[in-house]
Amino acid sequence: MEEAMEDLVADVFARACASRHVLENVVGKWGVLALAALSEGTYRFNALRRRVDGISEKMLAQTLHALERDGLVRREVHGTIPPRVEYSLTPVGERVAAKLIELIELVEGEMPAIRAAQDSYDNR
Amino acid sequence: MEEAMEDLVADVFARACASRHVLENVVGKWGVLALAALSEGTYRFNALRRRVDGISEKMLAQTLHALERDGLVRREVHGTIPPRVEYSLTPVGERVAAKLIELIELVEGEMPAIRAAQDSYDNR
Repeated sequence: MEEAMEDLVADVFARACASRHVLENVVGKWGVLALAALSEGTYRFNALRRRVDGISEKMLAQTLHALERDGLVRREVHGTIPPRVEYSLTPVGERVAAKLIELIELVEGEMPAIRAAQDSYDNR
Repeated sequence: MEEAMEDLVADVFARACASRHVLENVVGKWGVLALAALSEGTYRFNALRRRVDGISEKMLAQTLHALERDGLVRREVHGTIPPRVEYSLTPVGERVAAKLIELIELVEGEMPAIRAAQDSYDNR
């Protein structure tokens, strides 16, 4: 078990590792926030852009394309006029987003300690 | 419980949110890999650089400074000649790294599904 974990983790350090590229999409600043937002439910592009404060249109489009290609996000085009395009998580995306949210919650919970560390670093 | 989670997660979407900045250090491409590497034990700078394949000296220095300021990484200078500088995780850093490793393992485990999604995206 311990060894299996080391093997898995070892892999991701290699520049050419496929999972490292996926991880970059998932854990890039905007990937995290887009996945966390979509874990709340289906969003249209502009609503998602409002939810993820500060993201540009171009960056959100790029983030969603990468996550769609990785099979984490599903893009559905409804044949209305004008067409309605909706984004949601796939089952794989839901599992990844759930783990990301655990990470976000952990960091939120550690914020008092992190703020204290920042203050002491900045004042030394 | 459900509401508490939504509050926590809502927070991180705001541009000015302090935890979002920490999260950017933690989950930036290099932050993830540096924390995962340091979860294996103490490293000197150059050894860590070899471990994280592809990182530049400048980027590793920047990543470590940010993580040190957030109180996730400890930098220890030993008074030998020449001085030996060692990096390790703080207790907070260990908790964050453990959660990141869970995420890495999850992504590794989903790689067959992710690869299939990429192939089908690229061939459509």
